[in-house]
Order: sequence, then C-alpha cells, then structure tokens
Amino acid sequence: MSWHSDFARPDVGREQRKGVPEIVLADRKTPEQNVALAARFLEAEGRAILSRLSPESEAALRLAFPLPTTIEWLAMPRAMVLRRPDYVPPQTGGRVGVITAGTSDIAVAEEAALLCREMGCEVHTVYDVGVAGLHRLFGPLEHLLAQVQVDVLIVAAGMDGALPSVVSGLVDVPVVGLPSSVGYGLGGGGVAALLSMLQTCAPGMAVVNIDNGIGAGAMAGLIANRAALARSRPKDSE
Amino acid sequence: MSWHSDFARPDVGREQRKGVPEIVLADRKTPEQNVALAARFLEAEGRAILSRLSPESEAALRLAFPLPTTIEWLAMPRAMVLRRPDYVPPQTGGRVGVITAGTSDIAVAEEAALLCREMGCEVHTVYDVGVAGLHRLFGPLEHLLAQVQVDVLIVAAGMDGALPSVVSGLVDVPVVGLPSSVGYGLGGGGVAALLSMLQTCAPGMAVVNIDNGIGAGAMAGLIANRAALARSRPKDSE
Amino acid sequence: MSWHSDFARPDVGREQRKGVPEIVLADRKTPEQNVALAARFLEAEGRAILSRLSPESEAALRLAFPLPTTIEWLAMPRAMVLRRPDYVPPQTGGRVGVITAGTSDIAVAEEAALLCREMGCEVHTVYDVGVAGLHRLFGPLEHLLAQVQVDVLIVAAGMDGALPSVVSGLVDVPVVGLPSSVGYGLGGGGVAALLSMLQTCAPGMAVVNIDNGIGAGAMAGLIANRAALARSRPKDSE
Amino acid sequence: MSWHSDFARPDVGREQRKGVPEIVLADRKTPEQNVALAARFLEAEGRAILSRLSPESEAALRLAFPLPTTIEWLAMPRAMVLRRPDYVPPQTGGRVGVITAGTSDIAVAEEAALLCREMGCEVHTVYDVGVAGLHRLFGPLEHLLAQVQVDVLIVAAGMDGALPSVVSGLVDVPVVGLPSSVGYGLGGGGVAALLSMLQTCAPGMAVVNIDNGIGAGAMAGLIANRAALARSRPKDSE
Amino acid sequence: MSWHSDFARPDVGREQRKGVPEIVLADRKTPEQNVALAARFLEAEGRAILSRLSPESEAALRLAFPLPTTIEWLAMPRAMVLRRPDYVPPQTGGRVGVITAGTSDIAVAEEAALLCREMGCEVHTVYDVGVAGLHRLFGPLEHLLAQVQVDVLIVAAGMDGALPSVVSGLVDVPVVGLPSSVGYGLGGGGVAALLSMLQTCAPGMAVVNIDNGIGAGAMAGLIANRAALARSRPKDSE
Amino acid sequence: MSWHSDFARPDVGREQRKGVPEIVLADRKTPEQNVALAARFLEAEGRAILSRLSPESEAALRLAFPLPTTIEWLAMPRAMVLRRPDYVPPQTGGRVGVITAGTSDIAVAEEAALLCREMGCEVHTVYDVGVAGLHRLFGPLEHLLAQVQVDVLIVAAGMDGALPSVVSGLVDVPVVGLPSSVGYGLGGGGVAALLSMLQTCAPGMAVVNIDNGIGAGAMAGLIANRAALARSRPKDSE
Amino acid sequence: MSWHSDFARPDVGREQRKGVPEIVLADRKTPEQNVALAARFLEAEGRAILSRLSPESEAALRLAFPLPTTIEWLAMPRAMVLRRPDYVPPQTGGRVGVITAGTSDIAVAEEAALLCREMGCEVHTVYDVGVAGLHRLFGPLEHLLAQVQVDVLIVAAGMDGALPSVVSGLVDVPVVGLPSSVGYGLGGGGVAALLSMLQTCAPGMAVVNIDNGIGAGAMAGLIANRAALARSRPKDSE
Amino acid sequence: MSWHSDFARPDVGREQRKGVPEIVLADRKTPEQNVALAARFLEAEGRAILSRLSPESEAALRLAFPLPTTIEWLAMPRAMVLRRPDYVPPQTGGRVGVITAGTSDIAVAEEAALLCREMGCEVHTVYDVGVAGLHRLFGPLEHLLAQVQVDVLIVAAGMDGALPSVVSGLVDVPVVGLPSSVGYGLGGGGVAALLSMLQTCAPGMAVVNIDNGIGAGAMAGLIANRAALARSRPKDSE
Repeated sequence: MSWHSDFARPDVGREQRKGVPEIVLADRKTPEQNVALAARFLEAEGRAILSRLSPESEAALRLAFPLPTTIEWLAMPRAMVLRRPDYVPPQTGGRVGVITAGTSDIAVAEEAALLCREMGCEVHTVYDVGVAGLHRLFGPLEHLLAQVQVDVLIVAAGMDGALPSVVSGLVDVPVVGLPSSVGYGLGGGGVAALLSMLQTCAPGMAVVNIDNGIGAGAMAGLIANRAALARSRPKDSE
Repeated sequence: MSWHSDFARPDVGREQRKGVPEIVLADRKTPEQNVALAARFLEAEGRAILSRLSPESEAALRLAFPLPTTIEWLAMPRAMVLRRPDYVPPQTGGRVGVITAGTSDIAVAEEAALLCREMGCEVHTVYDVGVAGLHRLFGPLEHLLAQVQVDVLIVAAGMDGALPSVVSGLVDVPVVGLPSSVGYGLGGGGVAALLSMLQTCAPGMAVVNIDNGIGAGAMAGLIANRAALARSRPKDSE
Repeated sequence: MSWHSDFARPDVGREQRKGVPEIVLADRKTPEQNVALAARFLEAEGRAILSRLSPESEAALRLAFPLPTTIEWLAMPRAMVLRRPDYVPPQTGGRVGVITAGTSDIAVAEEAALLCREMGCEVHTVYDVGVAGLHRLFGPLEHLLAQVQVDVLIVAAGMDGALPSVVSGLVDVPVVGLPSSVGYGLGGGGVAALLSMLQTCAPGMAVVNIDNGIGAGAMAGLIANRAALARSRPKDSE
Repeated sequence: MSWHSDFARPDVGREQRKGVPEIVLADRKTPEQNVALAARFLEAEGRAILSRLSPESEAALRLAFPLPTTIEWLAMPRAMVLRRPDYVPPQTGGRVGVITAGTSDIAVAEEAALLCREMGCEVHTVYDVGVAGLHRLFGPLEHLLAQVQVDVLIVAAGMDGALPSVVSGLVDVPVVGLPSSVGYGLGGGGVAALLSMLQTCAPGMAVVNIDNGIGAGAMAGLIANRAALARSRPKDSE
Repeated sequence: MSWHSDFARPDVGREQRKGVPEIVLADRKTPEQNVALAARFLEAEGRAILSRLSPESEAALRLAFPLPTTIEWLAMPRAMVLRRPDYVPPQTGGRVGVITAGTSDIAVAEEAALLCREMGCEVHTVYDVGVAGLHRLFGPLEHLLAQVQVDVLIVAAGMDGALPSVVSGLVDVPVVGLPSSVGYGLGGGGVAALLSMLQTCAPGMAVVNIDNGIGAGAMAGLIANRAALARSRPKDSE
Repeated sequence: MSWHSDFARPDVGREQRKGVPEIVLADRKTPEQNVALAARFLEAEGRAILSRLSPESEAALRLAFPLPTTIEWLAMPRAMVLRRPDYVPPQTGGRVGVITAGTSDIAVAEEAALLCREMGCEVHTVYDVGVAGLHRLFGPLEHLLAQVQVDVLIVAAGMDGALPSVVSGLVDVPVVGLPSSVGYGLGGGGVAALLSMLQTCAPGMAVVNIDNGIGAGAMAGLIANRAALARSRPKDSE
Repeated sequence: MSWHSDFARPDVGREQRKGVPEIVLADRKTPEQNVALAARFLEAEGRAILSRLSPESEAALRLAFPLPTTIEWLAMPRAMVLRRPDYVPPQTGGRVGVITAGTSDIAVAEEAALLCREMGCEVHTVYDVGVAGLHRLFGPLEHLLAQVQVDVLIVAAGMDGALPSVVSGLVDVPVVGLPSSVGYGLGGGGVAALLSMLQTCAPGMAVVNIDNGIGAGAMAGLIANRAALARSRPKDSE
Repeated sequence: MSWHSDFARPDVGREQRKGVPEIVLADRKTPEQNVALAARFLEAEGRAILSRLSPESEAALRLAFPLPTTIEWLAMPRAMVLRRPDYVPPQTGGRVGVITAGTSDIAVAEEAALLCREMGCEVHTVYDVGVAGLHRLFGPLEHLLAQVQVDVLIVAAGMDGALPSVVSGLVDVPVVGLPSSVGYGLGGGGVAALLSMLQTCAPGMAVVNIDNGIGAGAMAGLIANRAALARSRPKDSE
C-alpha cells in the first residue's frame, strides 16, 4: 500500500524508543487524513489508535478498514483501535487503577485507560466517586489497593479537583492527577482542578495538564511497566 | 475622656444596624491610633476588638487600659478584646462550628471564631483535620453535627482547599468556606484554595475572600443568630 | 418502567442526606438522557427538576410525561419541574429574598429561587434595582426586611457587581452574593462582579461562583430552613 | 544657582504645553535628587510640587529651602508644595469635587486634589462615605451638585470599588474613577476596584489606573478648567 | 399604542436625570424585543437609539416604523436612530473630536460619536492615523485643536494601544482613551491596548473598558456639554 | 523527654501509612519550634528531616542534639537529617536520577534527592546541563539510563523549562518535572517553566508545583520503590 | 481602473518607507473587500499579498484576476501572491532559515517565509524537528549554518515552546522565536510557548507574538537584508 | 591562581561558540562568589563582565583586582568590566542605536549597550525621548539613521510601552523592543509595556522579556555583527 502524507510525520518509531505508542488526536483532522494515518500505523506497527473522532471520521475508518482488520470502539472518548489480524497485543503485567470524581471526567479517564491497556497493562476503573458523596470511594479504593494491588493510580477530576488529594492522602502508591475541563466561572475549564492538584497537601502525586488523558496514561503506563518488568525478571538477572 | 481621630471614622453604630460589631484591623495602624480606636469603642459600646496587633501595639494597649478594663488575648491571630466592667456580653444561643485543614489555617479561623463569640454565639473548633489524613475528620464532625447541633460550619483551608468541599458533601447545614493564604508556586497564597471552593461539587457552601476570617465570622454569626432568634421566641410571636 | 443509565449516577438520595434536591443541568445532555434522568427522579423522589433545557429537550419531556404527571415551566432559566400526582411539596416556612441588579441577571436568580422553593421556602423576588438607578432599591428592600422578614437575601449582579455590597451594607440578615456572567472587556463574563463581591467592604456576605444560581439557592435554602426549623419546634424541644 | 542633573530631565515646560504641572514622585529618589529637582522647578516655574516624600527627603527640603520660599505640607500623601515669594497661584474658577469610599483612599485622593488646586481649581472634598454605610453619601453629594455646582467629580475607592458606580448613577457631571490599592486576597491591591469601575453600569465615568491620583487630578483639572475657561470669556468672544 | 415588556425595564428617564440617553445594545435581543424597545423610547422620548443590530432586527425595525418616523443608519456599528416627526434634536454647542488608530477601531468610535451627537454635540472624526504611520496624525490633530477647538478628544485604538498616549502627550484638552478588541495572542482582544492606556506616561487621559464606545461617548459628551453650558450662559448668571 | 506542641501536629505515622517520611519545612518556624519538632520525630521514628533552616535554627539544632545523635547537613537547601544511634536507614534498591538545567535549580533538586535517599533509594545526580549548552547532557544521560538503570528521572528547570521536555523525548522511564522559581519578568518565578512542562510534547512526564522538591522526591521515591519491591520479591510471591 | 475603499486605507507606501510590504490578513474581510484590496496593491506596487483566505475569497480572487496576472498559492496558510506581468521580484541575497517544532506550526512559519521571500530573501525551511524527537534536528541545522550560511533563523513552536531555546543555544546567528497557538489546558493557545521563549536561557533570541508569522518574517527579512546590503556594496562605499 | 567553584559552572566558551560573552548577574551572589567568577573569566578570556553589583561586591572586586587589571564602571546598571593588560577589545564595525522612553529605562538600556560594546559594536544612545514629549524624538532618530547608519535599534520603555511601536513605524532597520519594569497598578512592572510591544502595529520589531537588557544586547549585537561581517569581507569572499 502506498502512503503519502504532506500534513504530518507520524512518529511510527515512538513505541520502540519511548515505550509509549502514539495516539492520533483526530478532532482537527479530516476523515481522509485520519484514514491515511491509520493506514500508516497499521502498516508499520500492526495497530493504530485514534481518539476524539467525529462521526464522519468514524464512518470513514469503518469503511476503509473491513475485516480482517479488527476494530475496537470506545464510546466516551470516541476512540478507535484498529489491529491487523497478526497483531499480538502486549501483556506486561503492569497494573493501573483509574478513578474519576464525576461522570464528566470519564472521557479523559478512558483515554488514559486505553493507552495503558495498549501499553500492555491491566486497567481497573472506578468512576463517579467524588467528594460530593465520599462514602462511595472507600470500598472500591480498598479493592484496588489490597486485591488488585495496583502499581499506580490515575485520579481524574474537574470542578474543585479535590478527589486526587483525598486519594493521595490515603494510599502508598504513586498517584497521577488528571484534571478535566469541567467547571464554569472563575477557575472553570479545569483550571481550579489543576491548581488544587498542584497545591496538594498529600505527598506522592504529580499531575498532567487539563484533559491530557494521554499524558496521564503514558506516565502511569511507564510506572506500572517498570514495576512489571522487575516482577517478570529472574531475581538475579539484574 | 476626650477623643479625636483624623485618620478614621469608626463605625460605632454598626453593631446595632448590622448585628455585627467592627473588628479593628490593627496591622496598618500605629500603637497610638490603636489605643485611640480602642478608647472610642470602649466608650461607645463597652467593648473594643482589635486583631493582628504588633507587639508594640499590644504593649501600648495593655498599658493604656489597666483594670478595671478587662483584656482577653488570642495568641494566634494576635487579637485583643477589651471590656468595660459593666459590659454584658451577648448570648444568643447561636451555634457555630469552625474546622481547619491545617495548623497554618488556625489564625484566620480564630479571627472568625472570635467574631462569632462576640456576636453572642457558642463556638466549637476542630483543627488540623485536612485531607492529607482524612481519618481524623469523621469523629469530630459527627460530634459537631449530632451533639453540638451547629447551625453553620466555617471550614478553613489553604493549599489545595479540598476540605471544605469534602465537609460540604457530608453535612446538612450551610458551610462558609474560608480560604487561607497558605501555598506556594502556581495557585499559591490561597488562590487555588479559593478557586477550588468556588468550584465545589457539593451544594450548600458559599465562600469569602482569602484570609477574610472576619467576613466568614460575620456571615456565620448572622446565620446562627437567625436560627437562635427563632429558637428564643415564643412560637406564636411571629 | 425500566431505567438504565450508563452516562450518569443520579444522586437520588441527596435530598435526604443534604437537605438539597439535585437539579439536573440539562444543557450538555441529549433529550433522551434528560428524559431518562427525569424518569429516574420521578420514580425515586416523586419530583424531577431540570434547568437550561434546549427546546428539543423541553419538547421531549413534555411528550414523555403526559398527565397525570404535572409540569411547571420557568421561561427565563428554561427550567422544568415535573411532579407525580402523589407528590407533596415541602413547606418549611423558610423565607428567602432574591434581588437582581439588572434584567440579564434574572435567569440565574430564577434558578436560585426555584431551588429554594423546591426546598420548601417562600421566595420573594425584586428585579432590576441596580446602582445605575439606585432609587428603585430602597422601597422593595424595606418591604423584604420589615414585612416579609426574610431569613436571608440572594443578590445577583453582573457588570460592576456593586449591588450586593450596597445591600449588605444596609441589612442585618446574611447575604449570598451571586455574580452573573454579564459584562465585556477586562473583567467581563462576571469576573469583575465576583471579585468585587469577594472584596466587599460590608460584613455579612459570602459568595458563590459566576452563574451558580443553584449553589446560591442551596446555601440560602439551608440558611432559611435552619431558621424555619427553629421556628417550627416547641421551645423546649431542643 | 547652578543645577545639574544626570538622573532625570524634568519637563519644566509641561504646564505651558499641557496645562498640567509636573508632580515629582519622590519615593524612588534620594533626598539630594529631590532637593535638586525642587530647585529646578522653583527656578523655572516659581513652584515645585513633590509627593510621597520620605521623612529624610522632607527634612532635606525643609532645610534647603528656608524663607522666603514658602512650604505647604499635606500629611496624608506626604506631599509638599514650595513657592517662591513672587509666585502667583493660578485661579481658574474650575470646580472639582473629590469623594472617597474609605479612609484608606484619602492619600491618593489628596494627591488628585492637590494637583487640581495647583491647576487653579477650587476643590471640595467628602471622605469616607462608602457603601458599607451609604446613608452618609446623599447629603454631601447633594451639596456638591446643587451648592458648589462642581464641573467634575473624582471618586476614589479600593476593595469592592462600588462607590464610583453608585455616584455615577446619581449625577449629571462627568466622573473620574480612581481605584486605590486597598484590598487583599483575590482582586486585592485595587484590582477588583479597577475592574468593577471599568464594568460600571452607569454611563459617564472613565477611570485611571490604581493609585494614580495624579492622573485623576490631571483629567479632572482639565475638564473643570475647560468649563471655567468658557465661563470666564465674554459670550461673543468665541 | 400599548406596550408591554417582561424582559427589560428601559430607563426612559435617564436622559433627564443623567444628561445621557440610553442606547439599546441590540445584539442579544430578538427582532421583536428590539421593535418593542424602539416603540417604547419613541413614545416616551421621541427618539430611539439602537446599536449592533442584526440584519433581521434592522429589517424588522424598518418595517415596523414607516414614515413619518425618520430613520438614520450607521453602517459600521450597525446602529439606527429613529425619530418622531416632532422630535427636536438637542444642540448644545459641545465640541468633540474622535480619532482612531486603525480601520478596525472605527465601529466603536462611531458608537461614541453617535452618542455625542445625540447628546447635542458637534463631532469631528479623524480615522486611521495610528503609530504605524504617525505622519498622518499631526495635520488633522492641529486642525481639531486650533480650528475646531474641541472640548475633549476620544482616541480609539486596539493592538498596542499607543496612539492615545501619543495624542495625550501633545494636547491640552482632556482625552478619553477607548481600547478596541483588536489584536491576537498574548494581550489580544484589546487587553494590551487597555493596559497600555492605563499606564500612560502622558497626564490628562482617562479610559473606559474595551469596546465601550457608548461609555466613551457618554463621558466625552458630558465633558463637552459642561463647557458648552458655560459658553451659553450669560456671564453673570452663575 | 517531655514534648508538647500547640503549633502543629506532626504526622509521625505518615511514613508507615504513605511510604513517605515527613520533611519539616523550617523556614517559617522559630528555632525553638524546629528543635521541638526534631525531638518529636527522633523519639517516634529515630530520624528527623528539616529543610530550609535559618542559620539560627541550624545552630539551635546543633546545640540541642549533641552526639550520639548524628547530624547530616546539606548546604544548598540548608537541610539537616538527625539520626538516633540505633536508627537503621532503609535501603530499598530503588534507583532515582536527578538532573538540573542550571545551578539555580540545585537547591530544590537536592531536597528531592534527600527525600528519595531517606525513602531508601539510591540517587544519582547530574547538574547544570540545560539547553543553553545541550552538548553537556547526552553523556551523563546515557550513563543514567544504561549503567545506573534508573527507575525514574527527576528533571528540575527554571526559566524556559525546556530541559524536562528534551529529556522526556529521549528516555523510556517516567519523568517527574520539577519547575524551580528561577526567572524574571513575564512568566518569571517558575511560571513559564511550569506551563512549558504541562504543555510538553513528549509523553511520559508529570509535574509538581514550582519549587516543590519534596513533592517531586515523594513521587519519584514511590515509583522507584514500587519497582524495587518487585525486584526484591521471589518471583512466585505475588 | 477605479478603486474606492471606505473600509481601509491600504498602506501602499509601506514597502518604500519600511522595507516591508504589507500582507493583507484576509480572514475578517469579505471576498469583495479582498478583491478590491488586491486590485489596489497590484495597481500601486505591481504585487498583492493576501493570507488566511477563505475558499470564497480565494475563488473570487482567481476569478477577478485572470492572466496575464500571475497567481502563486500557498496551501498551508491559504495565502496568495498576485503579480502583474511587469513586476520584477526583488532579490537581495538575504538568507533566512525557518524551522518548526511540529506540523501544526507550519502555517505560521509559511507566512513568515512568504514575507521574507517577497522581501527578496532566499528562504530555507526545516519542519517538524521538535524536542519530542530531537535527533531529527542536528543534521538540518548544521546544513543551514555551514552550507546555506543563513543570516538569521526563525524558529516556530507551540505547546512547550522548547525548540527555539534549544536552537538558540546551538547557533551564532540571531534567532526570531515564533510561538504558535498550539496547545490546550493551562498555558494553551501558545501562551506557554511564548512565555518559555521570553524566559529563554540562551542569549541571542527575540520573539514576536503568538501566530505572528508576518511579524517574524518582517524582523528576519530586515535582519537578512541588512547583511545582504553590506555584502552587495563595494567595500569602500560606506 | 587556583580557582574552584561549587556554586556555578561559568560558560567560558560561550563567546567562541555563540559570539556572545557571558555577563555575570551579580545581585544574587556573594562578594566572594563574584570575585571568584571574575577571576575565572579574566584567566580564561582576559575580560570579565559583571552587572547589578552591590556596593559590597563592587568594593571586593576593586580590592581583589588592582592594576595592571583595568576596571571600567557603569553607574546606572552598577556594572563593571575588568580587563587584563593584554586583552585586546574586539572591534567589529557593527553599529547599534539604543533609545529609551524615560530616565527609569536607562539602567537596562545601559546593560544592553554594554554587551553590544563588548561584542565589538559601536553604540549610540539617545535617552528620555518618550511619547509624553514626542517632539524630542525626531531629531536624534534622524541622526541615528542617516548619519550613524545603525544596523539595528534597541528601544527601551516601561509604563505604556508606546515608544518602540512609534519608532518601529518610522525606521527601516530591525528594532529590538526592551520593556522595563516601570509602572504601577494593573499592567505594572513592565507587563503593559511588554504586551503593547508584542501587539505592535508596526512590522519589524521583536521583543525580549522585561528588564532583559542583556538579551536585547545579545540579539542586537548579533544582528549588527552579521552586517559588519559582510561589510568587512572582500566582496568575492562569500
């Protein structure tokens, strides 16, 4: 298949170099550009990941890549993973927990979770357990820590951004704070959430920018895979 | 006693008009000015309240007002209440709870508590129960709600400002959020705390400006005294 | 009726826990989602409240809930209250006054008033009495204080945000400042109004975020109901 | 007298060109520099105006310019006007009113008033009539409008900055809003006051920057002198 | 004609009280609302002024008010003045100069000029003489000062906002700085222009908010009419 | 030894609960308070860590804790670690690399490194390799990755904040960006550095607030210790 | 050809006066206005340059200016250069290099390059060599410096804005930093990029505003042409 | 002489690599550190440049480096250049003009001029010709352009920052805008000046950060030396 792009140089080698595959942010691209980019990644890496797809781009991709290419669809971030039949998904054993304060934070959380899964991690999600009803948090959090034994937590919140600080005060694993662009008025659009996370009283959290689910996923995936790598090696191999 | 001021017009009638006595913010005034203002309020209202006193002003006031004037001193906000022997403190039956996230928030919380007490309320304080160690919160909060049956809560926090949202999500009384100027870097000086409170997910909270302990106390005192007034009246008097 | 939601967990227990019913902000939801949420609240609580409805959502709701469900419609905030025939509205005796500076502030003021009424309060409104023509303020304000004897005032203003400070300087009840997103240029969108309210010279006011009519209503409703509760109890019952 | 300056070029011709004399802002200059500048203006224009003088600069000036040079001292802005015995102060008949919201606004208001007087205007001041006690405003304002018949009003305010909008809504002369750097927390240092004035609902006001008393005085003096010039001319002279 | 409005209380008495007629900002109103407001002002004052009209509102107004009502149309701000046949325009003799830096500033300048004319002033305009080609400024400015003898200048600028400071440094009449929302990137939308004007080095200028042509016109009109009033009175009448 | 504190509740259990010991920020405390806090931590945990000590506090601590208590001193952040003779430092095998762009970033980097060491990690530092002379970076970075095999990198930078993005683009381990308060003018005090890091093009970095060396150290220490825990366990133990 | 404009005064003499031709920013103008402006510049200068053309304006221009007028089209900034047959393009010998960090920066970079070429410079471009994959930078940069011997570099970047600092640290020619409006969340829209460039650690760079490709091109063109002028003159001619 | 530094790595090779010598910013360093750095640069490059010296550091340097080391002192930026007897100053023939709006801008302008001179350029300065008295500008500017034939202009301004735009609109050489931290209130500290320069209407200017005289000097020096290099070479040498 011949492929030519004069609008972008996809970084097809990133996964090898960085351990993080590239996710195409599709919302500013035409359906034709998204199809071309998907083709390029499928060819080079056996898999293509696109997020924030318009209905038009979604339709164009479904049309352009019939079976045997398989398509996985995530409704909330409107994301798609295409895989060649011979693609073998990685499985690292890394364990990531993803928590959201509200339902409006789920789309960015799902982007983070998607990237972690494509980096080979197991991902466990707990949604809508924010501080307006904190009693919903404790059970699921205990489960993530004691049963799942996550290596890292992503905690997404908009509005007041209080949940990541609350969680970070309770756990002994690193926390990645993910502010979402929820909120209005002064400090709206995620600004108050981001600032509150930067000001956290609870040690052991670092943050990414507003709505940067992919950045949060990359950070958490690298953390979890570092631990998983150690688990998978013979003890004397280092 | 003759008194003359060319630097300020103390609003000696405010308590009658507004139900809130004036607290002199002493930090930008000379010891002489603070003594003159204290004399003016003692004469007109039988009581003077000054906060944020320098050691020099404190000493000048102690010297200027010997017995039988009585002096009450609060160390954290460096505040002083002077009372004439014939002054009868008000007792309204209003009930106010004051909570702080950290120890650095205590000074502004004490200013709020002081004003509520001088408005005639009972004040109950719980300090240093912030989200970095949330397990410390639940017992004292339950006590304030069930035993004390507070009419209103003031919750002070700096840094991430998360505690007021957490509390407001748990209680059925109005909450006054009081951000304190604690914190560094982006969102420092209380800005992140204030924005986070303005963005709260939990209904039933309103806020005052950073370090405005007096504003928080005035609001809470008015709320509590409104309820206390209703409690104190015969049922058919309205 | 079967109901399933994968986009939100409505907090149907909030009213019991917090004393504040949930108002669905409908503007970011599809007609189908709004109908589903309305059904859920009608079923669980006998009443559903939705605000900021698109014409499409309004039509869908009117179609989905014929008699005997009753529908109340508020034009300015485009809000709807649906009630089952067996729903008994609360009546607490709380008394709330709502004042606006201009006509552009009425929509958020109406949201606040709506929530107070649904919390059982009597609500009295006075609109368009801002500082550009202050002579219009004094008569209605006197009426609210002396005749109605309101427990709390909500004062909404955009632009310069001066009215809440003016009112707070004149009254002896707590004031909830409600900035609205009116205004252009520097400090526009309600920012100057909010900052001016945070900086008020007049003690006894706290504020909510820009356009947060629901937050203002929740705060005022809790304040008024606290006083009403005291009025309704036998004197020795506490 | 020999004079040399390598640190500034005083604009000694400004009064002739612009109708506004220069006021030396003394706070960033050494006593020696202030003495040199005062000498320069006394020589060239018969009068020197300096504001924001340190005690050291004040003392140096008093020492350097004995009688017959006359010295006028304003305590609040720490300003000094020196005049040669042969200096004839201008008298234009322009009429300026200066109003402040609080006592903390007086220093910048006095700078504005000083400049207006040195431009030849009559100046009438009313201080400490802000919105926390608005009943104090109406009488003096009526006096300025009906008796004094001011050509222009300067209204200074810090904190919420509400007074200039209130005044501008009541009068039919131009208003110069003068924000002062009073206030703390978000919107502090005069920012909220400036923004609120920029957002005023009441037409007929323009503003200068925070603490720019001299700018407000220059604007008001030019406005008043324009009217005074018209009053002083024979009717058919134009 | 019967008229009823539930969406606004037009301030039909403002012109008598303030000396400034109200201009209806039409862009957020429906054609029906604009027609109703125009009818209300025509009835009460004999004249209606509307600005920022959509083509739909313009058409509706032209249809609703046939002869003998006269219509004046300004293309740049899309403004309309309607007058009853018996309306007698005021003529005060006030003289206003309006200058713009660029062509993009003309719309707001025209709003200011319109209001001044409707307040009875003569208005003289000079457009597109900004600092990118300063040689174009001097001749027209000399004309305004020496021939026209303006009482006040409005100077509009976006982008760098440099022209008002340049003009204010050259003239001896008061200057009203009018920033326009021209400019991109940091300081865009008129913010840099406004800040630069607030920071002006040249005394004798005050400013209004970004795009507030009406505010600038009201201020300038009041200044010019104050001078004109003095010119029109017998010398001994005061 | 009797110990009483009415100014703070040291969280002596934090290390057990969170895996992160508390570092006392000493700069806002008196020498007496710092000595008391050090005694409290020595008693409860066998070790006390204080940073940002004034010379007075340093001297007081050296005097108060003679041998056999051992003292370690770090000059750049003016930090001190006191240990009881029986204290056994943890050794987890976690591996942390710390890089700074300039010499001004070293103090916060040293705080981060200190905390990592006290959490049991090996720490390797490379200082002053910023983008003004990028050729200095590549060799040391290769060493950290290939020889040391760090689990995580902390990269500190002020001014333009470019180095963390450059490093994150080159490595396959998680990066913690640490902005320092270096820089002047617009974006100064670390703001530009923080924003640039939040906007990084290179996936796999999360950030802490300006000058929050302790936060960066806590995050990196938890990441490294998670990997070290996996390395230290028998393969089948999980 | 008759031409009249009431919406703009094109500065047809700018190229002679400033050495920089005017580029019409077409995005806020109608097709008719753009055609009229193009005609005006073609007539006066033999060439017209328009950028950011809508498809409608592009079509109108192509229709209005058939052969023998020649048309050059740049797809990324949607820019057009029209030339009369007798137009002789300048050739100065100035040498400009243009580098971008990503593909999203190309549109503004192309505007800069276009202006440099129309000023007579040779322009050499290198795109998509940002810090997420810095290995792509060094070869092309060496080529620009050693082979092409550029007089000046324009470096465009959005997001973190790190590339211009990296380049400026490596080269000995002046660098013009060009931030582009790429990026989201806090510091988005090019703000972080601009601030980071203003804070650069590497001497020898100055910046223009976000997306101001034309400003960057004008600065670089003037720098290169100054050097080219010196190269083209006989040695003793100065 | 033995030299050791553990607090900084002076970039002694920068002049060779970048064409820009390093200027030590001395204000945050101890006298001992400044002496050590001066010694290091004198040894390696024959010259040391330090700016913003405290009186203590100045005295220490004068003591540490007696004859035959020569010392040049600049009073306004408190800068010192030390030279070994064998140091041969560069003379490139580059020509730089430096203009300031006010006297407060001279210190940063002198830093820029100093760096240009040390890079081998001739520097011509014109101070205090800002827009408050623009008539002072034209003569000196004409001289710089026609007689001196500068290759580049640095224009420094604080407050409104209007002068650089005015100059850039008049000249055909590149302009480096240098905002200085002069100004108060909103937009103070040089922010309005910087934003106004970024928004300039006049093409051919780029800017550096507030008070970055050294950055402006480096940029201008590189521009001038590029032109000078071309002038100095035989015509056919390129």
